[in-house]
Amino acid sequence: MTQDASEQEVNARANEKARRRKEVRDRMLAGKTIEKGLLMVHTGKGKGKTTAAMGLVMRAIGNGMRVGIVQYVKGKWQTGERAVLERFPEQVTIRTMGEGFTWETQDRARDIRAAQAAWATSREMIEACRGPTPRYDLLVFDEINIVLRYEYLPLDEIIAVLRARPPQLHVVATGRNAKPELIAIADLVTDMTMIKHPFQAGVKAQKGVEF
Amino acid sequence: MTQDASEQEVNARANEKARRRKEVRDRMLAGKTIEKGLLMVHTGKGKGKTTAAMGLVMRAIGNGMRVGIVQYVKGKWQTGERAVLERFPEQVTIRTMGEGFTWETQDRARDIRAAQAAWATSREMIEACRGPTPRYDLLVFDEINIVLRYEYLPLDEIIAVLRARPPQLHVVATGRNAKPELIAIADLVTDMTMIKHPFQAGVKAQKGVEF
Repeated sequence: MTQDASEQEVNARANEKARRRKEVRDRMLAGKTIEKGLLMVHTGKGKGKTTAAMGLVMRAIGNGMRVGIVQYVKGKWQTGERAVLERFPEQVTIRTMGEGFTWETQDRARDIRAAQAAWATSREMIEACRGPTPRYDLLVFDEINIVLRYEYLPLDEIIAVLRARPPQLHVVATGRNAKPELIAIADLVTDMTMIKHPFQAGVKAQKGVEF
Repeated sequence: MTQDASEQEVNARANEKARRRKEVRDRMLAGKTIEKGLLMVHTGKGKGKTTAAMGLVMRAIGNGMRVGIVQYVKGKWQTGERAVLERFPEQVTIRTMGEGFTWETQDRARDIRAAQAAWATSREMIEACRGPTPRYDLLVFDEINIVLRYEYLPLDEIIAVLRARPPQLHVVATGRNAKPELIAIADLVTDMTMIKHPFQAGVKAQKGVEF
């Protein structure tokens, strides 16, 4: 057998396998018929929770959707994303309620007030999506998991409001240590698991990557 | 003790704990002094690998950086992101070499040619970053892990080229099943772990979320 013939055989076998895989996948997708607003949770210790939410925002903007973002705790960091989002003022609304990372503020009473204000804004955004002309298609509650972890907000109320949101509304909640009650009502949960982090090798946070 | 007094005490204790945490963190960060281009890998079965890379692109754009993107296999999906990225033509270059997911093409020989073309483009982009006026600050090789997994490209060569890249250049490689050899030379590796997926509940892929 020449090498070409053998390569042709490898290709033929691979193509047949791909055809069967596609068949299975098409059948699987045909069974997925429900369209609804998703509650998505990005949690875990790894990088990418907020970054993936920003990627979703970008995709939504590109699809002509309208997006509301509430930054619960790390507003001052995200200069890069903000500069881009500000180019789409008709599509994107950003509210920054936090004062930076909680380990920088060292004022629990102020943090609680900031969290309450952020939640009040989040509720308003959810309410603005009822009726025939919903204000947003996607809401991002960035780092809400952290303030829920610290018990700065009433978890029961938040779960109830998220469950009762308009059915077409997509919501992304980010932050480490997502509450089990939130995971229970979510449609999609991803744990960003840290395998390797540059801090381990003495590399500092850098513009364009970390902030 | 009145409730206010008790609340004040809780706050005082929390603030003292936050102060100590900040001290530890500041000390940790002070030890991180290296600035260098990072090789970042987004892998795992969960959502968010490409999406987080797109979030990094957004952050980089906002910081005035220049970005090159090579889509190895799923070019036709990302209509949303592309619409946004096309608004920043001076900063973003996108090359789409793939023909969609490999389980849709069913043509191994064509897939290999597409992978080779994508890698040739990736190498050119890396080379364009040498010298006093580097063309890009960040390169995204989207889904390169998949073609490495299928052994469509010579892994040794790719590892060697990535290791020998200009020192200031950031690179993101995405896709499931990242090769151990790639993880070994990476600075940051995140595994997007699927905890819950809407397909499990019969929900279909939706515009603005999945594509």
